[in-house]
Amino acid sequence: MHPCAAIVTIGSELVDGRLVDTNANRLDERLRRLGFVVAFHVSAGDRPDDIDAALDFVVTRATVVIVSGGLGPTEDDITRDAMARLSGTPLRENAEARAHVEGIFEAFGRDMPPNNEKQALMPEGAHVLPNRAGTAFGFRVDVGEPQTSFFVVPGVPRELEIMFDEQVAPQLVERARALGAPTWASDEIYCFGMSESALDLAIANLCRDADPSVSLNVRDGQVRVTVTASGEDAELAAGRVRERLDAIVSRLGRRVVDRGGRDLPNRVAALLADSGLGLAMAESCTGGLCSSLLTAIPGVSRSLKESVVSYHNDSKVNRLGVDPDLLVCHGAVSAEVAQAMARGARVRAGVDVAVAITGVAGPSGGSQEKPVGRVYLAVDASPLGREPFIEVVERSFGAQGRNRIRSLAAHTALDRLRLYLESQAEDG
Amino acid sequence: MHPCAAIVTIGSELVDGRLVDTNANRLDERLRRLGFVVAFHVSAGDRPDDIDAALDFVVTRATVVIVSGGLGPTEDDITRDAMARLSGTPLRENAEARAHVEGIFEAFGRDMPPNNEKQALMPEGAHVLPNRAGTAFGFRVDVGEPQTSFFVVPGVPRELEIMFDEQVAPQLVERARALGAPTWASDEIYCFGMSESALDLAIANLCRDADPSVSLNVRDGQVRVTVTASGEDAELAAGRVRERLDAIVSRLGRRVVDRGGRDLPNRVAALLADSGLGLAMAESCTGGLCSSLLTAIPGVSRSLKESVVSYHNDSKVNRLGVDPDLLVCHGAVSAEVAQAMARGARVRAGVDVAVAITGVAGPSGGSQEKPVGRVYLAVDASPLGREPFIEVVERSFGAQGRNRIRSLAAHTALDRLRLYLESQAEDG
Repeated sequence: MHPCAAIVTIGSELVDGRLVDTNANRLDERLRRLGFVVAFHVSAGDRPDDIDAALDFVVTRATVVIVSGGLGPTEDDITRDAMARLSGTPLRENAEARAHVEGIFEAFGRDMPPNNEKQALMPEGAHVLPNRAGTAFGFRVDVGEPQTSFFVVPGVPRELEIMFDEQVAPQLVERARALGAPTWASDEIYCFGMSESALDLAIANLCRDADPSVSLNVRDGQVRVTVTASGEDAELAAGRVRERLDAIVSRLGRRVVDRGGRDLPNRVAALLADSGLGLAMAESCTGGLCSSLLTAIPGVSRSLKESVVSYHNDSKVNRLGVDPDLLVCHGAVSAEVAQAMARGARVRAGVDVAVAITGVAGPSGGSQEKPVGRVYLAVDASPLGREPFIEVVERSFGAQGRNRIRSLAAHTALDRLRLYLESQAEDG
Repeated sequence: MHPCAAIVTIGSELVDGRLVDTNANRLDERLRRLGFVVAFHVSAGDRPDDIDAALDFVVTRATVVIVSGGLGPTEDDITRDAMARLSGTPLRENAEARAHVEGIFEAFGRDMPPNNEKQALMPEGAHVLPNRAGTAFGFRVDVGEPQTSFFVVPGVPRELEIMFDEQVAPQLVERARALGAPTWASDEIYCFGMSESALDLAIANLCRDADPSVSLNVRDGQVRVTVTASGEDAELAAGRVRERLDAIVSRLGRRVVDRGGRDLPNRVAALLADSGLGLAMAESCTGGLCSSLLTAIPGVSRSLKESVVSYHNDSKVNRLGVDPDLLVCHGAVSAEVAQAMARGARVRAGVDVAVAITGVAGPSGGSQEKPVGRVYLAVDASPLGREPFIEVVERSFGAQGRNRIRSLAAHTALDRLRLYLESQAEDG
């Protein structure tokens, strides 16, 4: 029997059309992994009566409630007041929270505005949930009999995730154990180079069970495969997850970005670090996105020397040494130019390997021969003591919109680099 | 007074982590335009008790409820049963709905499976809502006193949108008119360079009314200010919005990114296009993010010539001509190097203006003197027939995490560029 959870998200922007609530979804998966079944999501705007009604609705229907949003410093941030009403206790200033907010403003060398003071308030007797990623501390309040625990966390997705994982999850693990819920384990892998439905088809017979359950999730062309299983203890649960994941991996082969669960940029950064190779990049239609994805990973400065966003043809010629005749004969969006960009990027940076991207991101600039969504990706490598390697691939992403085409192109370039680096690691 | 609406979405995939509920957001905006204020979203899985609880919750709290999902032919599609329980009437087959489902299978030359028969069932006395995009008919049921109208529609986004726009919206227009609801208008501006709380403080007395209402929303350091107002007709409502926005703009001055509602990258792209100036960029800690943000805007290829991600010091020297002595004396993260990067980027690309970014994104690499989060941003311009311009600003974003520091640095660079381009446009 799985204890029941509910999620309450608070903010007018969630119910007036401005924002899709993605926080509830973030929490669903996390709660499920911890052994809780989410029965409800409720979103309410910033009106006190509506927030009270939402909290009243869940208090009798869930053992654990996550409340997200409305902890900011502004007038419409009134979640803490609603929690005080629900628990029948007055708001009190928490010294730790107060010191935290003041410390943040001090670090910026600014005076704390008076309205930030309220961020230190929480219902009397609440258990504090520190926030290392923002000003708003969260708190836990236990209400009613049988007891429902309300974990109140910020609405900013990054702060919410960090606070949930570091502060809330450990408390929920204990709660689940006390309630005699089975232990759950979960693990995930990222795949690239297959649509969600093609992948679904390839592993369909491994996805039919409720436990272990397998769920698919696409973002930027990467499909995340999550396996969740229960067991009498953590080890048994993890063993059942591993077994199912192994079966999936052996079905998907090199489509699996990383057996250890890293996504594409993290996997490439790790392969680069392991190989000791130096990297350069040359981007046209992606305009720096590919480089930005990779440099989001800490430590990649040891591998990436430079990246040239050669947006204009002059830049392709001057910065990468692309032969102007190639541009005239084949056009900037061509296999030939992609290859020349990669070669030029590698040689001019004096590194071992380079990737290049050129394509038509749209919405204009497409032609019969080179429609919007057409992209060429090149890898050029010549590491010391190894065979030189050149690859150019053509992809047609169709008229899916500029940002999606750019994202798919950047991720595909990282994936080609991954495959090269993996082949080198295997040879080596 | 605005009549109150609620949205109930049904399906286990919405609460177990598989799917983000985007339907509620689709409906929010549509309902708001029709003059309804959405007070709640409630999502429930496929358990009868949970669906009943969700419907009971909204029946006393809204005049209009949109219920989406659970109208399919499979065993877990039980929304119609719950609606029959709520309205206290038995399910009956609707002849029109039955003929519709049969017609679809006939058109495909297939026999109708027996479980599709239930798609023709609806509570006795329900008003049918035809579906021209799928098999599932919707229906309207009026419950309680004062009456709440439940519009039950499919969960497939495309079917939901068509059915809402064609079948539900006309009924709601009449309902809003009968209830004497006003017309709504809404508009927004983006601001940069103030925290949400500082901005809140600056315009506090303009934010206190319920109508026009003013709401703030932060993303990537940009604060979006949305003003919503009602009026007897669309023009009067828009006039009230404009008046309030004008007051806010005159209070915030140049912090307002664009009076016309564009965000920072879009505003910069438009200013560049208007100015006819050519741009180059040089990025270190942001690793291509700033360039990627700007190139996400279509048409920016007419202004941006190139961007150099000079991640390694060699690249700063070789690609941008930064004096190696500067790197030795002041370090790569310094005002001097930022300025030299901007100058080198502009001169080597042969363009009018360049921006450069260098900083410590962390998590490692910080020092006492240059802690994580310290960033230097430079603008160097020398357009034909104009005064040369050089600016270097220092910012300390604190230890907010690598990605947030990168994002704030990239947006701040775009903002400095905006301010320069605006000053040029004003000079004429």
